[in-house]
Amino acid sequence: MKIAVAVAGAGAMGSRVGLYLTQAGQDVVLLDDWQMHVDTVTEHGLKVNTLGETETYPVSIRNFKDYSVPVDLVIVLTKAMAAEEKIKQLMDQGVITEDTNVMSMMNGLGHGDLLRKYIADDKILLAVTMWPAGFNGPGEVTLEGTGNIEFGRIDGTVDNFVKELNDIFNEAKLNGKISDDIVTSIWNKALVNCCFNTYCAVTDKKIGEFGAYVHSDDMLIPLMKEIITVGEQKGAKLDFDATLNKFHAMYSPDVVGLHYPSMHHDIHNGRKTEVDFLTGRVAEYGREFGIPTPYCDILTHLVHQIEK
Amino acid sequence: MKIAVAVAGAGAMGSRVGLYLTQAGQDVVLLDDWQMHVDTVTEHGLKVNTLGETETYPVSIRNFKDYSVPVDLVIVLTKAMAAEEKIKQLMDQGVITEDTNVMSMMNGLGHGDLLRKYIADDKILLAVTMWPAGFNGPGEVTLEGTGNIEFGRIDGTVDNFVKELNDIFNEAKLNGKISDDIVTSIWNKALVNCCFNTYCAVTDKKIGEFGAYVHSDDMLIPLMKEIITVGEQKGAKLDFDATLNKFHAMYSPDVVGLHYPSMHHDIHNGRKTEVDFLTGRVAEYGREFGIPTPYCDILTHLVHQIEK
Repeated sequence: MKIAVAVAGAGAMGSRVGLYLTQAGQDVVLLDDWQMHVDTVTEHGLKVNTLGETETYPVSIRNFKDYSVPVDLVIVLTKAMAAEEKIKQLMDQGVITEDTNVMSMMNGLGHGDLLRKYIADDKILLAVTMWPAGFNGPGEVTLEGTGNIEFGRIDGTVDNFVKELNDIFNEAKLNGKISDDIVTSIWNKALVNCCFNTYCAVTDKKIGEFGAYVHSDDMLIPLMKEIITVGEQKGAKLDFDATLNKFHAMYSPDVVGLHYPSMHHDIHNGRKTEVDFLTGRVAEYGREFGIPTPYCDILTHLVHQIEK
Repeated sequence: MKIAVAVAGAGAMGSRVGLYLTQAGQDVVLLDDWQMHVDTVTEHGLKVNTLGETETYPVSIRNFKDYSVPVDLVIVLTKAMAAEEKIKQLMDQGVITEDTNVMSMMNGLGHGDLLRKYIADDKILLAVTMWPAGFNGPGEVTLEGTGNIEFGRIDGTVDNFVKELNDIFNEAKLNGKISDDIVTSIWNKALVNCCFNTYCAVTDKKIGEFGAYVHSDDMLIPLMKEIITVGEQKGAKLDFDATLNKFHAMYSPDVVGLHYPSMHHDIHNGRKTEVDFLTGRVAEYGREFGIPTPYCDILTHLVHQIEK
């Protein structure tokens, strides 16, 4: 089956998803605001670095403001803080119609709530992806490693579109997987990011260095409990013990112990972080539910304090 | 009146107090562990910088291990983490006898509880000092500005020794003041240090920069409330509104807005901080009293994480 796909946000992950779908024969357009990036890819194609080798591939790319063709699927991979504006823009320009499925593939929490403001439940898809990807500058990405895309309808329905999209992702070698509980998957990923992104950004440490502190569990455990308590109110089924074990395993240099989480890169490159969609969002939900979230509160503020 | 005084810890503040008492005719010895500092002061006197001028003054100084003369008063101005060991050493060596008054002039919380392990209440004095002082290296300090020493017995008694010591401090131009509630004064000073030392160290900001963050009150208020709640259990009378007003006034460049608190200097000079005697001690007392202290807990851990 062939569908028309717009990938909103042609950063590292948007480029990966858009390129793979293009190569599998789908009708894909990448959308981005950065005209220099759009022009470079249009003129020279997308330059892809893999294990020291560079290849260039043609992909279709447009500035958001220059695109107004209705599509079957919009995959949202903008920065979290830009998502709402972009969804409204794509609706205004007729890219998103009543028949368009809209999938959030962004990190963090609250994207489903955002989509529900504009899109009917039976057109909303949520996804969690574990594909790594790096953006090197206009027109150039690094695509290495492997991953998958776990996704599903916000209401858990598995309809024909979901099944077809899974086939499309697998034909594109994106390793699709229909989730039986996408909300839980999103919270599980957010739980990792809430804990390590914030702490490693504030302490200026790699994941393994953070874990080497003798009381690191005393920092993680109360934070995890806040997030799990709030997440359960939002319908996620989260396992404290399994998560803590997973965290401990991450400290190893063979896993991700030698890495800084992405928020650390954002801080050091002077970019605004997505903390409001991680601990900040948990704190916001906590206030709605009357659940105290002192750890999420203070970490959110500390990250904002150190943002340039 | 003339008394024999040992100043335990010949850093910046110990040097200031010891020098002024010496110049006022008291029988003073400075004690320190750093032999190079002891030798330099012994050979050349204490070099004092004031507003660009340098003068050198003779003061008596010994290595802790080389002193065993009983004194009337020991003023404890070591690093907080060294205080217990030094008190025991001075008792073992006969410097502290049953007749010796022992005064903690250190920053932070818990020094009274420590002294009570070894010294009778009617020989314990607690002090808060606002004198600034800077240590430049072996044998050399910077002494500028002005200040005072507020002090009193741990049990509130104003006996003859307290009155005489106040006269001695005033003759020495140290601006003595007998406190009518030294416990409250100590907690009031600790409240400032708990809030600004930790936050400015973790965020790498000056006091005014910290205050410029639009939600800085949301960081301070819950932390202040924890400290005030615990402090009240320890007998301190703390005023939330007055403290918050004082904090806001501190942001001004005319007050201390352009300064980094001392913990920031410790972090950047690779020294261990005194956080365990500030938020760490509040958290410890909180556990004793069953008062939750999530802000003190996490700030203490964050400071330890960023200590080299």
